[in-house]
Amino acid sequence: MRGFDVVKAGHIEFLVTDLKEAKKFYAETLGFVVTEESRNHIYLRGLEDRIHHCLTLTEAGSPGVGHFAFRVASEASLKSIEKLVKSKGDYVRWLEPGEERGQGRALLVEDQFGFPVEFYSKMAGEEWMLQKYQHHRGARVMRLDHFNIMLPDAAAAFNWYVKSLGFGCTEITETEGPKPALWAAWLRRKHTCHDIALTTGKGPRVHHAGFTVTDRASIMDAADLLASTGYLQSMERGPGRHGVSNAFFLYLRDPDGNRIELYTGDYVTSDPDWVPIRWKLNDPQRQTFWGAPTPASWFNEAMLVKSLKTGKFAGLSAPKIRDRPDYLLSAR
Amino acid sequence: MRGFDVVKAGHIEFLVTDLKEAKKFYAETLGFVVTEESRNHIYLRGLEDRIHHCLTLTEAGSPGVGHFAFRVASEASLKSIEKLVKSKGDYVRWLEPGEERGQGRALLVEDQFGFPVEFYSKMAGEEWMLQKYQHHRGARVMRLDHFNIMLPDAAAAFNWYVKSLGFGCTEITETEGPKPALWAAWLRRKHTCHDIALTTGKGPRVHHAGFTVTDRASIMDAADLLASTGYLQSMERGPGRHGVSNAFFLYLRDPDGNRIELYTGDYVTSDPDWVPIRWKLNDPQRQTFWGAPTPASWFNEAMLVKSLKTGKFAGLSAPKIRDRPDYLLSAR
Amino acid sequence: MRGFDVVKAGHIEFLVTDLKEAKKFYAETLGFVVTEESRNHIYLRGLEDRIHHCLTLTEAGSPGVGHFAFRVASEASLKSIEKLVKSKGDYVRWLEPGEERGQGRALLVEDQFGFPVEFYSKMAGEEWMLQKYQHHRGARVMRLDHFNIMLPDAAAAFNWYVKSLGFGCTEITETEGPKPALWAAWLRRKHTCHDIALTTGKGPRVHHAGFTVTDRASIMDAADLLASTGYLQSMERGPGRHGVSNAFFLYLRDPDGNRIELYTGDYVTSDPDWVPIRWKLNDPQRQTFWGAPTPASWFNEAMLVKSLKTGKFAGLSAPKIRDRPDYLLSAR
Amino acid sequence: MRGFDVVKAGHIEFLVTDLKEAKKFYAETLGFVVTEESRNHIYLRGLEDRIHHCLTLTEAGSPGVGHFAFRVASEASLKSIEKLVKSKGDYVRWLEPGEERGQGRALLVEDQFGFPVEFYSKMAGEEWMLQKYQHHRGARVMRLDHFNIMLPDAAAAFNWYVKSLGFGCTEITETEGPKPALWAAWLRRKHTCHDIALTTGKGPRVHHAGFTVTDRASIMDAADLLASTGYLQSMERGPGRHGVSNAFFLYLRDPDGNRIELYTGDYVTSDPDWVPIRWKLNDPQRQTFWGAPTPASWFNEAMLVKSLKTGKFAGLSAPKIRDRPDYLLSAR
Repeated sequence: MRGFDVVKAGHIEFLVTDLKEAKKFYAETLGFVVTEESRNHIYLRGLEDRIHHCLTLTEAGSPGVGHFAFRVASEASLKSIEKLVKSKGDYVRWLEPGEERGQGRALLVEDQFGFPVEFYSKMAGEEWMLQKYQHHRGARVMRLDHFNIMLPDAAAAFNWYVKSLGFGCTEITETEGPKPALWAAWLRRKHTCHDIALTTGKGPRVHHAGFTVTDRASIMDAADLLASTGYLQSMERGPGRHGVSNAFFLYLRDPDGNRIELYTGDYVTSDPDWVPIRWKLNDPQRQTFWGAPTPASWFNEAMLVKSLKTGKFAGLSAPKIRDRPDYLLSAR
Repeated sequence: MRGFDVVKAGHIEFLVTDLKEAKKFYAETLGFVVTEESRNHIYLRGLEDRIHHCLTLTEAGSPGVGHFAFRVASEASLKSIEKLVKSKGDYVRWLEPGEERGQGRALLVEDQFGFPVEFYSKMAGEEWMLQKYQHHRGARVMRLDHFNIMLPDAAAAFNWYVKSLGFGCTEITETEGPKPALWAAWLRRKHTCHDIALTTGKGPRVHHAGFTVTDRASIMDAADLLASTGYLQSMERGPGRHGVSNAFFLYLRDPDGNRIELYTGDYVTSDPDWVPIRWKLNDPQRQTFWGAPTPASWFNEAMLVKSLKTGKFAGLSAPKIRDRPDYLLSAR
Repeated sequence: MRGFDVVKAGHIEFLVTDLKEAKKFYAETLGFVVTEESRNHIYLRGLEDRIHHCLTLTEAGSPGVGHFAFRVASEASLKSIEKLVKSKGDYVRWLEPGEERGQGRALLVEDQFGFPVEFYSKMAGEEWMLQKYQHHRGARVMRLDHFNIMLPDAAAAFNWYVKSLGFGCTEITETEGPKPALWAAWLRRKHTCHDIALTTGKGPRVHHAGFTVTDRASIMDAADLLASTGYLQSMERGPGRHGVSNAFFLYLRDPDGNRIELYTGDYVTSDPDWVPIRWKLNDPQRQTFWGAPTPASWFNEAMLVKSLKTGKFAGLSAPKIRDRPDYLLSAR
Repeated sequence: MRGFDVVKAGHIEFLVTDLKEAKKFYAETLGFVVTEESRNHIYLRGLEDRIHHCLTLTEAGSPGVGHFAFRVASEASLKSIEKLVKSKGDYVRWLEPGEERGQGRALLVEDQFGFPVEFYSKMAGEEWMLQKYQHHRGARVMRLDHFNIMLPDAAAAFNWYVKSLGFGCTEITETEGPKPALWAAWLRRKHTCHDIALTTGKGPRVHHAGFTVTDRASIMDAADLLASTGYLQSMERGPGRHGVSNAFFLYLRDPDGNRIELYTGDYVTSDPDWVPIRWKLNDPQRQTFWGAPTPASWFNEAMLVKSLKTGKFAGLSAPKIRDRPDYLLSAR
């Protein structure tokens, strides 16, 4: 697996309408570590992170995603990626070191699907909280694991990520019938189940960002805590076991409705000859291995993304194929 | 707390239409220990039990509950209970030692609410599997914890169990409004949250029997196992945290639809001056502390009970007050 | 099981030389809830407790145990106990309501073995933290479970607790050989493995107080936390699984050397005909089911107890039989 | 991180004197999945493995290690490695596809330190047991994680693995004093804490192979199971938390004394600029974060390795620097 030496899903920027409320949710309740705060931003990291941030909260007029970012192995890779994306006619902008706090030189791209994607190779080091257990609180969030994006044509994005950017595919979901279409794919650079998942739906939107916690107990404890502190409505789906990825999960909505996943227990994927696990869209165990149906909000709602060109939220296009399993078609 | 020296919820008899299928579910999958089998019965116990059975499976034409049973401290207590129930006009029958396998002399009662309730003081000892971890499988069921029964007039049953039989009340649910009515009560003799719960509904029916497992991991592991072995439809509700009892739970339907609960993590209740915890029927955290709504089947479906007098299932009467929270009223 | 309606092990008073250090250990680190503080005392309870205290810290010149206390069902029981202990020539003193904060009228006894034992029936109610998960920290201590005392003649104490005070025996340890002597016993009133354990050794001393936590994860998390906050030396033994009681444990020494146990996962013991589990003193799985040898400090060190008569620590007598297993005899 | 595209620690061959006993330990008790058996070999995999084997048991006259193996990205890498090792004068031998069951063409090397190391790129696919939870038993072993080898000159091996084979270093242990010497190093290719650890000691020997389990509960459950099935002596060290790697562990000796580690909970290491965590040899939290001292057997005993040239066990040389912390120097 070569590509452009993309290392991993690096960080994501959430737009929030009230920084204080967002801090209460992410830092004080879920236990993200605050690395740095400015008037408009809070930079957060996980307990396992030795880097400046994996989640940025930016105060804005409405919620959504400012950008999501992949770390690459070297600055040289950034230039190769610039060349590649320009060949697709994508919009690019360079960020100087420090223009995003804690980060080295970075390439900001509005890709062909309308997503604001950043590539960077350097980030400032920070104190490791992993063995300072007195700082482990809330959901005991360890690190960013993945992004899940929703777009009209998952197959086109599959080609881009796999063929151009060198991602490996670990699992896919196909539609039923004699001519199955690719409905979703889980793609990875680091040795986990995925760095990014591509899902069919109205887009471009970011469906959620997944953060790794240590074990099932951390997720259950987080649910108890959220239920005790006024965040009952934040728990959208789970806890449960995924079919895809085999991970244990809990989906949360922050006070602005931005969605994150607490995630643990997927598998290791270093092998280069990994054959993708295949699921059918209507398989009742695909999303939740225990069979619990996913709520309609999971298919209807996702985060708008900011266009780098216009500074406004990107307009949405309808999916090219159906965007949900049979049991929810009537709920559309 | 005196009463008639009732010690605890002792065992329950489930009627099943296919003993082999039932054994596959309870013994081979969930990990109940088989103490003894006959042509029509299987006697099961938990890993922690040193007694002959806490669950009897009896082959019958249709599913339901044959009887449920309380252990009392002495044979003298049995006679006192006979006198008491006869004063209420209840039907009683004595069982000789061994008439129910492994059990001493027993008093079988059809109580004023139509439930077939057994009282006994002696049961044969059996091997303790608690420290034979090679036999811990499935949900690693430890012991019976409680019965949950559904009947038209929970307040009347409350009086019977608390005032006549000496049970203590740990938690109650009341209806909303200026004149709240008792909707459900959790009653105990042993030092846990309950031996029996009384719930308002069409009855007499047994809603479920709750069995203790060691911890949350046992419940999660059971869900994974059931999902891998064709029991997807068996998982009716959960896993989740209860508001009432604070226990972690998973509700299962056996192949005949009989309902059990895997249950863990309630509190200890030895104190005689325990003030009941009070809940309102519509509180969204009452049934599931995390706010997940309980499915309508939970209110609609329960196990019929066998009449000792007729040998047939007891007829049902409508509840005296509403039988479910607001959000489900339209689903009735 | 009748006796004098002893309900359970109620609370214990630890003497500490530095209240501030003790508070840091018990409240800030292990997560006991502070109910009330005075100049000389801190009253602590567990997350599950609805009572004023289960652990009192009292500032004193040297560490040890001020008294330990059993809750009884009624004030009438207190009078019966007074009569009984006086018949043994024991010293008694009455405490007025509130003389010990939060507690009703109480009988303080220096028993025939030299232990300062309190009996009381009423204690003030306090807020339940069980479902306020934002207050669950550290070891997430739920409640007091048991006392473990060390004295020269365990058999004599067995008679007193079982025959006079009506405790039930769940497990015993005997010496090897053709004429086994009782070496230790686990006795209970509430429906757990024990409220008090009697162990052979130089005494009267209190070996430890055991506090219940929810599950194994709580104990492991506590070990991580203690190791991160300068309490490396506090972890004396464990984590591990006990043979006796089957509980999962971690033994801690507070900054003064007082010993507590974090304890979880024993069994329920409501049955009146429970046959004691029998262990041999030299069985390598008796103390730790996984076979890890117990350190010599466990047999050498225990907490001195304050004499009610003299106000000084009770003098010690040598054990009547050997006080430890073979493998440690050379270490005496 | 380039090197020769080594992907990960792939598998290890243990020599056992009784295949049946070894199978009982690894497959029936710990729950490794049997892929294939022949007269002299048993090929085992973990629940997460989709490959033929990660552990081979080979019947032999005495215990030890036949070889350990790294998976590489392509057959082309094998040739580059051959060239490299020959340049060091190392002995190489090619294995034809299938010569080791389930494996493609492979390069067998006796490296400059005397270790029998195999490199291969292809292995037959096998059924994934990860979501067939009915097959999860014992320690629920997921996959091979790492090898730990012991040799006289860890610094020389560090150079070889890092500079020639392109491994990254995640943690190191140094001796005390003004001129610290490298005492041990944890090196990785896949995105975990390590694929191989190099430790100072009499060698060449393999200290242990580490296998990943899902969580702490799996390790605790394994300890309970081993303690119930006659493997009390197999538990050499733990369970506990490592300082190095932060993983939770239990060290086991198989019936022949070969050593494995059950391992869970280290961190993800995809970042190319990872700065090694540094430990001092005498730090009491280095080996066990909770401070429990490591037994002398851990430093004294390790597995002999078979020389590819002679077919006999490689002779041992004394370590170039001290081989253990201060507290064990007297125990040597």
